[in-house]
Amino acid sequence: MAGSTGVRIARGDVRTVWIAEVWPELDAGRCAVKRVVGDTFEVSADIVREGHEALAAVLRYRTVKDTSWREAPMRHVDNDRWVGRFPLEENTRYVYTVEAYPDAYRSWATDLEKRLAAGMEVTSELLEGAALLGPALVRAVGADKKRIEECLAAVERATTSAQRARILLAEETAELVQSYPDRSAATTYDRELEVVVDRPLAQFAAWYEMFPRSQGPRPGRHGTFRDCVERLPDIAAMGFDVLYLPPIHPIGRSFRKGRNNSLTAGPDDPGSPWAIGSEHGGHKAVEPLLGTLDDFREFARAARAAGLEVALDYALQCSPDHPYVREHPEWFHHRPDGTIKYAENPPKKYQDIYPLNFYCRDREALWEELKSIVLFWIEQGVRIFRVDNPHTKPIPFWAWLIREVQTVHPDVIFLSEAFTRPKLMQAMAKVGFTQSYTYFTWRNFKSELAAYFSELTRTEMAEYFRGNLFTNTPDILPPILQTGGRPAFKLRLALAATLSSLYGTYSGYELCENAAIPGTEEYLDSEKYEIKVRDWNAPGNIKDYVGRLNRIRRGSRALGEYRSLRFYDSDDDNILFYGKQSADGADTLWMAVNLDPFEGHDARLALPMGELGLDPGDRLQVHELITDQRQLWRGPAHAIRLDPRDEPAAIFRVTPFPRKAFSDPCY
Amino acid sequence: MAGSTGVRIARGDVRTVWIAEVWPELDAGRCAVKRVVGDTFEVSADIVREGHEALAAVLRYRTVKDTSWREAPMRHVDNDRWVGRFPLEENTRYVYTVEAYPDAYRSWATDLEKRLAAGMEVTSELLEGAALLGPALVRAVGADKKRIEECLAAVERATTSAQRARILLAEETAELVQSYPDRSAATTYDRELEVVVDRPLAQFAAWYEMFPRSQGPRPGRHGTFRDCVERLPDIAAMGFDVLYLPPIHPIGRSFRKGRNNSLTAGPDDPGSPWAIGSEHGGHKAVEPLLGTLDDFREFARAARAAGLEVALDYALQCSPDHPYVREHPEWFHHRPDGTIKYAENPPKKYQDIYPLNFYCRDREALWEELKSIVLFWIEQGVRIFRVDNPHTKPIPFWAWLIREVQTVHPDVIFLSEAFTRPKLMQAMAKVGFTQSYTYFTWRNFKSELAAYFSELTRTEMAEYFRGNLFTNTPDILPPILQTGGRPAFKLRLALAATLSSLYGTYSGYELCENAAIPGTEEYLDSEKYEIKVRDWNAPGNIKDYVGRLNRIRRGSRALGEYRSLRFYDSDDDNILFYGKQSADGADTLWMAVNLDPFEGHDARLALPMGELGLDPGDRLQVHELITDQRQLWRGPAHAIRLDPRDEPAAIFRVTPFPRKAFSDPCY
Repeated sequence: MAGSTGVRIARGDVRTVWIAEVWPELDAGRCAVKRVVGDTFEVSADIVREGHEALAAVLRYRTVKDTSWREAPMRHVDNDRWVGRFPLEENTRYVYTVEAYPDAYRSWATDLEKRLAAGMEVTSELLEGAALLGPALVRAVGADKKRIEECLAAVERATTSAQRARILLAEETAELVQSYPDRSAATTYDRELEVVVDRPLAQFAAWYEMFPRSQGPRPGRHGTFRDCVERLPDIAAMGFDVLYLPPIHPIGRSFRKGRNNSLTAGPDDPGSPWAIGSEHGGHKAVEPLLGTLDDFREFARAARAAGLEVALDYALQCSPDHPYVREHPEWFHHRPDGTIKYAENPPKKYQDIYPLNFYCRDREALWEELKSIVLFWIEQGVRIFRVDNPHTKPIPFWAWLIREVQTVHPDVIFLSEAFTRPKLMQAMAKVGFTQSYTYFTWRNFKSELAAYFSELTRTEMAEYFRGNLFTNTPDILPPILQTGGRPAFKLRLALAATLSSLYGTYSGYELCENAAIPGTEEYLDSEKYEIKVRDWNAPGNIKDYVGRLNRIRRGSRALGEYRSLRFYDSDDDNILFYGKQSADGADTLWMAVNLDPFEGHDARLALPMGELGLDPGDRLQVHELITDQRQLWRGPAHAIRLDPRDEPAAIFRVTPFPRKAFSDPCY
Repeated sequence: MAGSTGVRIARGDVRTVWIAEVWPELDAGRCAVKRVVGDTFEVSADIVREGHEALAAVLRYRTVKDTSWREAPMRHVDNDRWVGRFPLEENTRYVYTVEAYPDAYRSWATDLEKRLAAGMEVTSELLEGAALLGPALVRAVGADKKRIEECLAAVERATTSAQRARILLAEETAELVQSYPDRSAATTYDRELEVVVDRPLAQFAAWYEMFPRSQGPRPGRHGTFRDCVERLPDIAAMGFDVLYLPPIHPIGRSFRKGRNNSLTAGPDDPGSPWAIGSEHGGHKAVEPLLGTLDDFREFARAARAAGLEVALDYALQCSPDHPYVREHPEWFHHRPDGTIKYAENPPKKYQDIYPLNFYCRDREALWEELKSIVLFWIEQGVRIFRVDNPHTKPIPFWAWLIREVQTVHPDVIFLSEAFTRPKLMQAMAKVGFTQSYTYFTWRNFKSELAAYFSELTRTEMAEYFRGNLFTNTPDILPPILQTGGRPAFKLRLALAATLSSLYGTYSGYELCENAAIPGTEEYLDSEKYEIKVRDWNAPGNIKDYVGRLNRIRRGSRALGEYRSLRFYDSDDDNILFYGKQSADGADTLWMAVNLDPFEGHDARLALPMGELGLDPGDRLQVHELITDQRQLWRGPAHAIRLDPRDEPAAIFRVTPFPRKAFSDPCY
């Protein structure tokens, strides 16, 4: 039904149930919410109708491929708020809406019970009750039809009002009649909403980023996909799930950047992988120095066998040598003098790349071609794309592209690398990006971490924006890592791995690499412009720590949740205290992290005993997962000391201390 | 433009501005918001686009009768939030939406300025800039066209880049080009929203309710409209704006209720005015004992002359003697035994009225007839309807009826008498009721008053729900009035008159009538069932107090505002401290009310100095309007004592104490 502004009410409209404030619903249904396969999806709504008659409501849902609707019952919670749930079983989009209708039988039964209680005469009411069975009889089939007939016959046979009332009010009668309700006056909510149901990896994964060309064994030699295969056991041993590669395509020669982003490249400088395209091809080709397309496919297969899924970079720009420049000059921006515009952010110039003109006259062909790049790599077995700077391309382009691809390949994951203004980052997520980079890299202090992650996981954003927390990227070596040493690398990793179900690191992190160009967040001798062959077992590395955290993640259903994050009080400003719980409440973790990489700090933690269903003074079994130590705590508070030189973070799995008989063994 | 769920994105769509979170917008535009003539309407929206190009945005609006749109500029506030305003000048519905487009000139100018600052070569950029004037030239007319031509000629004549840049970046050039923008890529928000603009009385009025039949001079004699005319000066002197009459129609004889709601009426008992309809007619007739339709019209004219507008009761039910029962039995509910159902709420029975069946087969004719009742009274000069129990009639009926009536008569005001569950009351307001009764009558204590009125005036409800606070009604004599004596009547009146811009009292309040049927909120010897002729000047009356409050209201623009209510701290739990401010900030009132009718209390008020733009320690001129006393206060706190036996409430008009030279006279 509709109110004043929207659909006009017709005279005599009987669809009179008022359904409003449906949740989740983003931008009036313009954007879909996100969940993963295996989730139970909960929908609630305000449902009211005039008067005091009883209502019934159902949640209607289907996958976009289904032609018919399924239904789940909704129940009244409080204050005219109703709720229903259905299981998300398929990796696809589901559509859902709400339908409600008067429950004539229940209205009648409630009324009759009041009359009986007041000792009133009910002959007429009983006739009305029997009449309600008629329509149910028409709709019923099989055994139910027979049971309704029997019920009516019993009413007929009964000799007193009391007998008739007993039959008509019986629970069995109620169930029968309510199973075949009269829905001729049913009102359906006026929008159909969508939930994108991704595969679980879209919500729970640890990402590892590496430059394939740096994976060779010898300094100075360009690494290959075959070298990458050799690296897989080491990365898998650290417990990562996704292996993300910067662009693997041929790199342009024109205006190639040299070491440390210098304007002139030496003959052996490999150039930035983001300067895509050369005489060897463009976005659908492989840089010959890395190997062949077959080599890539072989590497991707080997990665999968090692438990790692390969993610590619989808970076929509071209080196001046890209085949598109020659074949489709109309796809680029042209200056009045006829030359093609290179990328600029005055006074900065990026002469090695041309941006595409998404608004050019031939844009339909351009958009199709760009889509075909994604489809090409899907054919090679890739299902994850990290999208470079999506916020410099039109929002509708992404809405179109992602829907086009996911309609055929619902398992494809798109990570938005939009480091930009909040609303633009949100728009990218709303139109379809599966995951998004965040401001985590620049959030170091207690209040700003709590505020930011409360926004991400406790507001409407949690419905559509999945933050993938990168500790570092080839572009960002944050100050805390530059100055905080090994303790900073440990604490930032612990935060990333536990604040979100999605996080990532860029290789070198495990070696605590922290040399920056002074006064910037840029890596010194950045891998973007040169090959860096590392000693992966260099002293001081934190590979064991990375592996331990990733194993803790894999062993915890609580850490697999994105939206159950809660912050709790600790009385020291350096110590962040927070928790996560699995949807069924069976796995509860509490994390305490010392945010100061330089000093040890003490804090008294206010334990949220209520979240375990406990009284403030109850006892807890506590298992610290990083050090594998067990403790027995008593609520409602616990004193803790975290020294960054030792362990900056603690991850406590907490369970109620069972109340057992003295004779049972207990801990 | 649209995202994933709603409208599908087409390949190559160029309408790429993302417009979201438009405010105000209720239920995705399904319901209109409310304002009054003379308001400035403010609309805000998130407006973003990819990249860093400049945007421009306009608020588009028109009345529902207009065929073309008007526009008001929007400006960027912060964090991609834009705001615009337009004046509401007509008593009608306005439609509004948002349009945004890339501002190519400003993008170009910003870019050029950066290049110039960096000393870069700009020949090509200047060519681009001049090219931007071309399309503006095509769109421009008159003098502007000439000015653009001159500008282009000047660029042509210029001999250096610096000269050309100066001309192209000149403020005059910017204004010219931006006045004729290229809006071919403009994006319009995908919904058109509505604001109902009522006449001012819809938002600011003091209502007085009286039974015409009780207005005669002699006890026992049925009052007439002519008697009512005599009463007008007294009511007008108390400063009321609206004079609301319970139903004035012929009252049925069948099952007429006697005194104190007894089942048998004596021969002289007049019956409940809500049992509408007799052989003398139904909803379009006047009870003969009150006079004729001409008498009513004469009374309504006299009221208007006295500054009072008459409101009628629109009560959609029928006595068994109503002509509809005979002429349209199909409009009622029938029991299986063929009799018509009377109103019931088991075990309570209302044998003197039949509810209408809004879902009957002939419902279209029924709805039309019910509408014709409103139109009939509009013809008699009535423009305000207090609607009895709307929540027992279909929500879409009201959506339909109110829109139908207001489309032709936008000055008609509907007050919803829905005392029911919160969501149902809200739905009534959302579908069109101009005003609504509230839970005020049952809110007595500090925290519950602050919570409830914050909800009404500070949440989304403030956009569509205008609470009309009745101190009492013929159905509700709340416990505080039964027990609190004269102080209670004063304090509850002061609260009603200042918490909302709309309030009302039912006659007898000014006489502090407080006799109830014990254990209930019902008046003893209720006027609903008998004629009550009162001594309007009985000792102990608070008519002067009523008059003073209504004069204070009329003299204060702050009290005319519905949505500017704020609660402030006072350190005593009996003393409520709150304020209101006019939209332009020129009139500020602070109210302190002792909620305890029995004892005096002291409190320290935390003065919100910042709302006057003052520092905490600044001085204030204070004028207490009830006692007409002037004081000089110094922030940030003030101690106050309110004794209910004296004055339970204080209304302070506060102004900054002017900082003047010593030689000026100052206070």
